[in-house]
Amino acid sequence: MPHRYFTRELADGQAALTGSDAHHLANVMRARAGEEVVLCGPDGLEYTGTVTAIQPGRVEFSVSEGAPSKAEPDMAVTLFVGYPKQGKLDEIIRHSVELGVHEIIPFFSRYCVAAPKKEDAKNERYNRIAAEAAKQAGRAQIPHVAMPLENFDAVCRALSAYDKSLFFYEGGGSPLRELLTPGCAQRLALVTGSEGGFSTEEAAAAAEAGAMTVGLGPRILRCETAPLAALTAAMLLTGNLE
Amino acid sequence: MPHRYFTRELADGQAALTGSDAHHLANVMRARAGEEVVLCGPDGLEYTGTVTAIQPGRVEFSVSEGAPSKAEPDMAVTLFVGYPKQGKLDEIIRHSVELGVHEIIPFFSRYCVAAPKKEDAKNERYNRIAAEAAKQAGRAQIPHVAMPLENFDAVCRALSAYDKSLFFYEGGGSPLRELLTPGCAQRLALVTGSEGGFSTEEAAAAAEAGAMTVGLGPRILRCETAPLAALTAAMLLTGNLE
Repeated sequence: MPHRYFTRELADGQAALTGSDAHHLANVMRARAGEEVVLCGPDGLEYTGTVTAIQPGRVEFSVSEGAPSKAEPDMAVTLFVGYPKQGKLDEIIRHSVELGVHEIIPFFSRYCVAAPKKEDAKNERYNRIAAEAAKQAGRAQIPHVAMPLENFDAVCRALSAYDKSLFFYEGGGSPLRELLTPGCAQRLALVTGSEGGFSTEEAAAAAEAGAMTVGLGPRILRCETAPLAALTAAMLLTGNLE
Repeated sequence: MPHRYFTRELADGQAALTGSDAHHLANVMRARAGEEVVLCGPDGLEYTGTVTAIQPGRVEFSVSEGAPSKAEPDMAVTLFVGYPKQGKLDEIIRHSVELGVHEIIPFFSRYCVAAPKKEDAKNERYNRIAAEAAKQAGRAQIPHVAMPLENFDAVCRALSAYDKSLFFYEGGGSPLRELLTPGCAQRLALVTGSEGGFSTEEAAAAAEAGAMTVGLGPRILRCETAPLAALTAAMLLTGNLE
């Protein structure tokens, strides 16, 4: 399997890698002109790149037609995740990227134990974690981790941009198996809570905003387990886990 | 919701809590005679226990008829999990217990990076983690973590005890959606690998032992993510996640 690299510098049949990726390809992999790698472009497509020039800190390519990656789901799933305590968001990001998430949007809500603190720096870190996980998982897109929304109203307003929104709430609602089918949504939003869960007002607001209330069964899932179960279920039922 | 306690001392309409549970109920919760709690018996059933006597280090109850817990799946899922590096098994156990696993059986296989070391002591610790997770998740049964099997042949021999066995293998096989339906198995085995994955010989041996080879999609899941996705999928498709 040829090596895979993400690049933002790809247009008009040409592409380049710089920085640590160029170093890796030129000095570690000892690539030569004419060799092929897989390049994942900023458009989320996969390209076959043929090395045309190797310079210090820069490798250039001619590229083929782009094609959708088989590793990418056929829908874009956004995970709205209640901001958890301590380092739990790191692991939620890693797992979610592997499971095929498109974007992760943390939010603060009434019963969040975590409070906003140095979120600019944290967000840079979260996006580095997402990029690293995307490479390891063989993704063709690097999922974006958004800056946290400051309250649940902002989550509810954001839901209008999705074909379908599922609000995961203790006590449940419709069985997931009946709500999701292959091709049922282009843009799907999943909303899971932090340690403290949701207030009844927040649950009502989510329903008012058009989200379907759904449960994840009779066992109590921790806030770091629920998003993984939700994502797995969404991918499985839409045919994106096979 | 009344408090829940696990007890092994429950028979003939009577039960008792001792040790830290008795302390918690008597001194922290300040229970009095006549109060009710939920007792989870060694048979996996739930009982309503009415306090009859409080002594130092011991609380006694009269108990109702036992009933199956709504928190327990209608099938017993055993997770055979390739022994991972570092502390990853701790987190796999926690997640799996929340998701409804019945038993966890770690195993060593050809490409395992971890090697057996002080497994007796570790096993005690793993079972404490499982018990703690079962309480937090509202389970009525404490899933057992077995001592690790020493090679993959032992896994294959063990599979004969299950109605259905799924071997999760990179490169996949049948879509899971077509293999699992409500009521399809009383005893289901899921087999996932360690960081190193499986050898082709191991994959062939699993198939020979009657396991169905299945995939978890085109993205590469880490060895700590695959069992969670597998368990979620199994619970979802059999109606045990609603």
